[in-house]
Amino acid sequence: MARWQPRASERLMVAALDLFEERGYEDTTVIDIAERAGLTKSTFFRHFPDKREVLFGGDSMTGLVTEAIAAAPAGATPLEAVANALHAVGTESFTSARRDFVTRRWAVISANPELREREALKGLGLTAAMAGALERRGVAELTACVAAELGALAWKIAYQRWSDPTNADGFSQLACQALDEVQAASASC
Amino acid sequence: MARWQPRASERLMVAALDLFEERGYEDTTVIDIAERAGLTKSTFFRHFPDKREVLFGGDSMTGLVTEAIAAAPAGATPLEAVANALHAVGTESFTSARRDFVTRRWAVISANPELREREALKGLGLTAAMAGALERRGVAELTACVAAELGALAWKIAYQRWSDPTNADGFSQLACQALDEVQAASASC
Repeated sequence: MARWQPRASERLMVAALDLFEERGYEDTTVIDIAERAGLTKSTFFRHFPDKREVLFGGDSMTGLVTEAIAAAPAGATPLEAVANALHAVGTESFTSARRDFVTRRWAVISANPELREREALKGLGLTAAMAGALERRGVAELTACVAAELGALAWKIAYQRWSDPTNADGFSQLACQALDEVQAASASC
Repeated sequence: MARWQPRASERLMVAALDLFEERGYEDTTVIDIAERAGLTKSTFFRHFPDKREVLFGGDSMTGLVTEAIAAAPAGATPLEAVANALHAVGTESFTSARRDFVTRRWAVISANPELREREALKGLGLTAAMAGALERRGVAELTACVAAELGALAWKIAYQRWSDPTNADGFSQLACQALDEVQAASASC
């Protein structure tokens, strides 16, 4: 019988990141990752379907953003609801304590075509989830899609600024600012 | 010495699509594809780096859209330049003669996670290429990014409508219409 492993998924993710940095993604096996985390291969596969997935940590981000969009005030515009989601990412996931981990993870992903592909598909899924959450607030389908795309772009811009260690601002603040800039830019297209 | 193979890349793509439909992506090898096309495995690898790539036909789409953006009239707005690119896609690639092939290709991609990942990354690359082409026209970086994202969304919407066989309109017309809708929606975000 499998023993319950506290925070196994996070331990596997940290071990994988260390190993991908040390010896490269291609030269790291699932068994290496499980061993480094002090866990078994079968524990790995209870948490992740394949090696590619280990840096993506399930779909916790999707739940975070869709709940934050749902929780935005009733009178919020679509982009205000999206801002609420980006704020939640800043307070729950892209915190200052996790900046080092998040930027290391991104560096590993950027360097590997397989991981970049997985990341690209995850990004599409996250944007679609934001659009769906907006629609459930009564936003028209196309407006919801556009707001989600603008939010995804603001997210990317804020992420780039936040991952720069010379930048002292928090992700929430940077994302809010980027969303304003994106909205202004959309008016001059 | 390798003999020159007329339209080898297109023959390989057609053979791959047939085989992926017949026996599935996973159960088709590069050798199967080359044999079906009447070509060799080494000819395959001169055209495509791996099996995943065969349905993506090099980067001809990138050249098509960036050239069309560059060729838009000097006074065109960013979205008018993007409209020029979508129009070029309709006249050069998503033609009525190719609709059956394009929609079959999309069905195969949608059904396979590996291909969906590659498609997602290609989509990001194409959007970035459109943004780059807009910047070379003197459009500010952020405006170029927003216009490219709106263009990518219009492309996706137009593609969905065009691939519906009950729809008689050409891709260019549908894309132009979708871009207008997307622009209007962005004003109500």
